[in-house]
Amino acid sequence: MATNETISTFIPPVRTLMGPGPSDVHPRILNAMGRPTIGHLDPMFVAMMDEVKGLLQYAFQTKNELTIPVSAPGSAGMETCFVNLVEPGDTVIVCQNGVFGGRMKENVERLGATAVMVQDEWGQPVDPNKLEEALKAHPEASTVAFVHAETSTGAQSDAETLCRIAHTHDCLVIVDAVTSLGGTPVKVDEWGIDAIYSGTQKCLSCTPGLSPVSFSTAAVARIKARKHPVQSWFLDLNLVMGYWGEGAKRAYHHTAPVNALYGLHEALVILQEEGLENAWVRHQNTHLALRAGFEAMGLSFVVPEAARLPQLNAVTVPEGVDEAAVRGRLLNEFNLEIGAGLGALAGKVWRVGLMGHACNAKNVLFCLGALDAVLSDMGAPITRGAAVPAAQVLIV
Amino acid sequence: MATNETISTFIPPVRTLMGPGPSDVHPRILNAMGRPTIGHLDPMFVAMMDEVKGLLQYAFQTKNELTIPVSAPGSAGMETCFVNLVEPGDTVIVCQNGVFGGRMKENVERLGATAVMVQDEWGQPVDPNKLEEALKAHPEASTVAFVHAETSTGAQSDAETLCRIAHTHDCLVIVDAVTSLGGTPVKVDEWGIDAIYSGTQKCLSCTPGLSPVSFSTAAVARIKARKHPVQSWFLDLNLVMGYWGEGAKRAYHHTAPVNALYGLHEALVILQEEGLENAWVRHQNTHLALRAGFEAMGLSFVVPEAARLPQLNAVTVPEGVDEAAVRGRLLNEFNLEIGAGLGALAGKVWRVGLMGHACNAKNVLFCLGALDAVLSDMGAPITRGAAVPAAQVLIV
Repeated sequence: MATNETISTFIPPVRTLMGPGPSDVHPRILNAMGRPTIGHLDPMFVAMMDEVKGLLQYAFQTKNELTIPVSAPGSAGMETCFVNLVEPGDTVIVCQNGVFGGRMKENVERLGATAVMVQDEWGQPVDPNKLEEALKAHPEASTVAFVHAETSTGAQSDAETLCRIAHTHDCLVIVDAVTSLGGTPVKVDEWGIDAIYSGTQKCLSCTPGLSPVSFSTAAVARIKARKHPVQSWFLDLNLVMGYWGEGAKRAYHHTAPVNALYGLHEALVILQEEGLENAWVRHQNTHLALRAGFEAMGLSFVVPEAARLPQLNAVTVPEGVDEAAVRGRLLNEFNLEIGAGLGALAGKVWRVGLMGHACNAKNVLFCLGALDAVLSDMGAPITRGAAVPAAQVLIV
Repeated sequence: MATNETISTFIPPVRTLMGPGPSDVHPRILNAMGRPTIGHLDPMFVAMMDEVKGLLQYAFQTKNELTIPVSAPGSAGMETCFVNLVEPGDTVIVCQNGVFGGRMKENVERLGATAVMVQDEWGQPVDPNKLEEALKAHPEASTVAFVHAETSTGAQSDAETLCRIAHTHDCLVIVDAVTSLGGTPVKVDEWGIDAIYSGTQKCLSCTPGLSPVSFSTAAVARIKARKHPVQSWFLDLNLVMGYWGEGAKRAYHHTAPVNALYGLHEALVILQEEGLENAWVRHQNTHLALRAGFEAMGLSFVVPEAARLPQLNAVTVPEGVDEAAVRGRLLNEFNLEIGAGLGALAGKVWRVGLMGHACNAKNVLFCLGALDAVLSDMGAPITRGAAVPAAQVLIV
């Protein structure tokens, strides 16, 4: 209740963001965020919304009409998929190989539906055979859900195969692509994904706060044929579609986060300029440089090579090293943020992101140099000079 | 799927926003939105979050510990209040005198609870006697909900009296203050409000996308004693509290919309600099100038004087005038946005906002001059020269 007279304008430090997200935001996107706000029903804004839809269709590689950003972070995108596609009493097969599969379970159960869990070791991709077995054991299942790119471990699962198996058993598929979109191939139509959600603050290099989603024709048909109303008014796609639908006439649902959408629009324009395939190649090549550095240093990856996400590198903390102290020194002495382990991997790993705009040679060499200096200073058992082999990869 | 090669950076026009929100955003806030993104668990960010909490306590006039911005627009703030405080089978008395009371009903029913509606005419404040009667008729009710400032009509209800009646009947009270916060008195502790939500894009002059909320000790106790889990994972305050709670150690829940929070922080710093009471006086005085102009023009207000919100002026469209054509010309010829009627008032009224940074003498005279010119040009039966009496009010 005090007048708080001592609080003044917040000027953030300039960090390098190489954690699990948010990643460094492109300066063009920061500029876009600060442009003058216009009304959420302004014809100029509505035209921009149509462009965002088209650009998101490109990013998701889909022709799905219902391809929009949800006006809230990735967790709300996840919830949008579950509350619209699942009804009370339904059975959902949830494949878990990290933190975010567990969150899917929470979503299913809060809907009054049953989650059948298919567990894989953290750091491993989802095992298609286990999904197949679960579907055979649960013919009542109507939906399969899995995380394409587990942000908690850096493991990538074979979304195409998992979707094919699910469809064989007449299930719709919900896919978490929060960390994959824009960094590694995500092909919604080719793979047959029915519902997908992502975030803006990972490989799109945008500020956090929005969740791009896309729904197939089959998913939309299921939403329209629901027996129970969607339990969330805010996330009810029957209502949201009225605002994001075709044509100049939009029905007011909620006030869109206008400036955040300026930012996403600019992020997607940048992605289109680079080209999706070029962005994937850049992520892969930059990852190879970082990998060379980590391996030269003696750090080992959590995820086997075939399933490794280039944009999220989880490496094991060397024995005897206080991992939080290392992160603290990187932040305070180098303004460099890398990520801690999450859930079962807390205290055991670092997660180093190479996402979107932050995925570049400068960041790789900076991160390796800073980590080298801090770990050496703390007496950790590493081999010094890791930046050299990394730089060599970048030259070749 | 196309590469959309023709889409380029979106440069919005510079509008004057005098609709029901978003309102004109202060340039200092736009600057804040474009500052470099930092991590949502960065110690500097966590310190800024604490400042936002303190500044929101000031804005809401409360000592409530649980005073935070929800990471999504006002509709999600509304849903946060209902999903956390109401359980399946509960009875909620919802007072409706416009569009947003109806949205409350939707929220209650999607929870599996019963909404008992107390209806008042659109444009009128909520009648405390009707609430009293409904509470007597429904002793099973555990919650009362009403809109303090109806954005669809511009009517202000007597929140203090309504809260007192509700508490006499042992109900907790949920209040919609989307349009009132920062523009007219909102005194959470003095009035005994248990749960309140607002928006950033009205009298706080911030970009849309966040919803400040505050919960009393009694409300928090009810949330902690729930029998059923909160149906929304994203909006479950038991989890959100872990991220916005006290101390440097924050539990990750979702990725906060970092740059949007920079904007809200700056908006609240500006409010603190002006002083809450001064902001209320400015809104009232500026409204009186606009009122003088509208009355001189011959336009009549929808809401009786005693219940009129200074920040949202709903006036009746003169007979025979195509109201959409007028708004279109104001937008295209003057870059001026005023609002249309909503729900039962669609096509019948204009809603002229004087919110936050947009609430100033320049906007009043600009709006009256532009409206005067367009209505006269269209042959509408108005008296010309309305800017003069408005300007006179501003001088005195």
